[in-house]
Amino acid sequence: MIQICEVGPRDGIQNEKKILTTEQKVELISKLIDAGIKKFEAVSFVNPKVVPQMADAEEVMKLVPKVNGVTYAGLVLSRSGLERALETSVDALHVVTATSDEFNLKNSRRTVNQAVEELTKVAEEGVAAGKKVAAVLATAFGCPFEGNVPVERVIKAAEAFLQAGATELTLADTTGMANPAQVADVVKTFKNHFGDLDLGLHFHNTRGLGLANALAGYQAGVTRFDSSIAGLGGCPFAPKAVGNVCTEDMVHMFEQMGLETGTDLDKLIETALWMEEQMGRTLDGMMMKAGEA
Amino acid sequence: MIQICEVGPRDGIQNEKKILTTEQKVELISKLIDAGIKKFEAVSFVNPKVVPQMADAEEVMKLVPKVNGVTYAGLVLSRSGLERALETSVDALHVVTATSDEFNLKNSRRTVNQAVEELTKVAEEGVAAGKKVAAVLATAFGCPFEGNVPVERVIKAAEAFLQAGATELTLADTTGMANPAQVADVVKTFKNHFGDLDLGLHFHNTRGLGLANALAGYQAGVTRFDSSIAGLGGCPFAPKAVGNVCTEDMVHMFEQMGLETGTDLDKLIETALWMEEQMGRTLDGMMMKAGEA
Repeated sequence: MIQICEVGPRDGIQNEKKILTTEQKVELISKLIDAGIKKFEAVSFVNPKVVPQMADAEEVMKLVPKVNGVTYAGLVLSRSGLERALETSVDALHVVTATSDEFNLKNSRRTVNQAVEELTKVAEEGVAAGKKVAAVLATAFGCPFEGNVPVERVIKAAEAFLQAGATELTLADTTGMANPAQVADVVKTFKNHFGDLDLGLHFHNTRGLGLANALAGYQAGVTRFDSSIAGLGGCPFAPKAVGNVCTEDMVHMFEQMGLETGTDLDKLIETALWMEEQMGRTLDGMMMKAGEA
Repeated sequence: MIQICEVGPRDGIQNEKKILTTEQKVELISKLIDAGIKKFEAVSFVNPKVVPQMADAEEVMKLVPKVNGVTYAGLVLSRSGLERALETSVDALHVVTATSDEFNLKNSRRTVNQAVEELTKVAEEGVAAGKKVAAVLATAFGCPFEGNVPVERVIKAAEAFLQAGATELTLADTTGMANPAQVADVVKTFKNHFGDLDLGLHFHNTRGLGLANALAGYQAGVTRFDSSIAGLGGCPFAPKAVGNVCTEDMVHMFEQMGLETGTDLDKLIETALWMEEQMGRTLDGMMMKAGEA
């Protein structure tokens, strides 16, 4: 069974210039629930001046359907984000830091060590407040400014968050630098180091390798993947880059391989096409264009 | 070492409405040779009324650079195509049939058996004339009209061509229906059945799985892949579908995995961007947009 965390409502749209209404965001989530999605990174508690698309996080969380078995995570980058998140009904906190200093300095004006220090406290407080905490380690497969990111550095950050009470770890290929051989290596190293860790993978399709990397991750034993409906998403530091791995394309791959995802591909494609109408431009997903085989 | 057969000049452009000049086609091939490509499916000897883009096959073959170590193949679908091919300097004949009747009837007005009967004779004559012959078995991973194509049927056609003197076999996923698990299975079945066969794979990225399928093929032991610069290509029977696996994206994947392709990625990307100018529209390749990591 493949577990999908839909990040379209957060990573997918956060850099889109067209600001969606709260109602559109809630409708997107509702449609995805109807298509079988059980887990969302639904909102981000970041500075609304920096990321205006995420400014209505509290409103979104008030209006999303509360459905048994569906969990909502909110992204948290700081203590003030935590305070906002704890005022909402999010089930989980996704605390995020890059694992390369240069990227992290640009993204949140801190070194990795500074971020880990602040965010492990955030994680502890989140756990104390009854929230599930997942650590998301960005640039884990490479940094657009520093290049290679040693796996030891990623492990060190992971250890700190697990010690602080995080129960999930997601390795993110923020700017699409991973390759399948590297994914297999990194997953193997993490499995050897951490044993039975709940490990997830978050890929971007920037260089066309999103699905190949997800395949390599699955072959290495990972069954939890982030993805974004219609392939929405992008990175502010890679302006020509495209988005996250596309949810319905990944579902198609795994289902064709005989693996269950618990989702309805037709409904996912319908939602992707609906999303294309909302955004008013052609989106990256392939299944929404080619249709099922 | 990964061996790439560049099919951009044939499969890539054959369905493009914008007819390229002979000079543009030759310039494309020259640029690709400069980027390290050693093998081309350069032309197609089909009815120019049906595929006007390929009408100048003889002219193209007259003008392409004759470079040591570079081989040119011409696609042949019939006896009349063979006769044309033998008047040119092509090194190899790619004889092509689909492995599903309904597709083959639409594509060349013959059943698979009828095509195999005619084309094995073509293969024999080609070999007798001193040409290398490769058999390309289309719809080998599924047919858009018939669905599943039993692997036994593909093996039967392969046997006939090998007996007729073909020394290469390429399995083609003509409309992008393959998935990585199936690719692994089919390759394994072929390797078990044929032993040391020179087996290549030809994927389309119609449903986003081109590179994941190439990865699965490589993992199963295949090292020869067709691809098309900038991801050009498409299928007349799948109008919304996109093209072949993109050469520079596949090169990037394999090179990042530490595998040699003998090509220069920068020059491939430059050629893809040049091709975009010639076609006058945005092409599908990802590396040409994102750049190297």
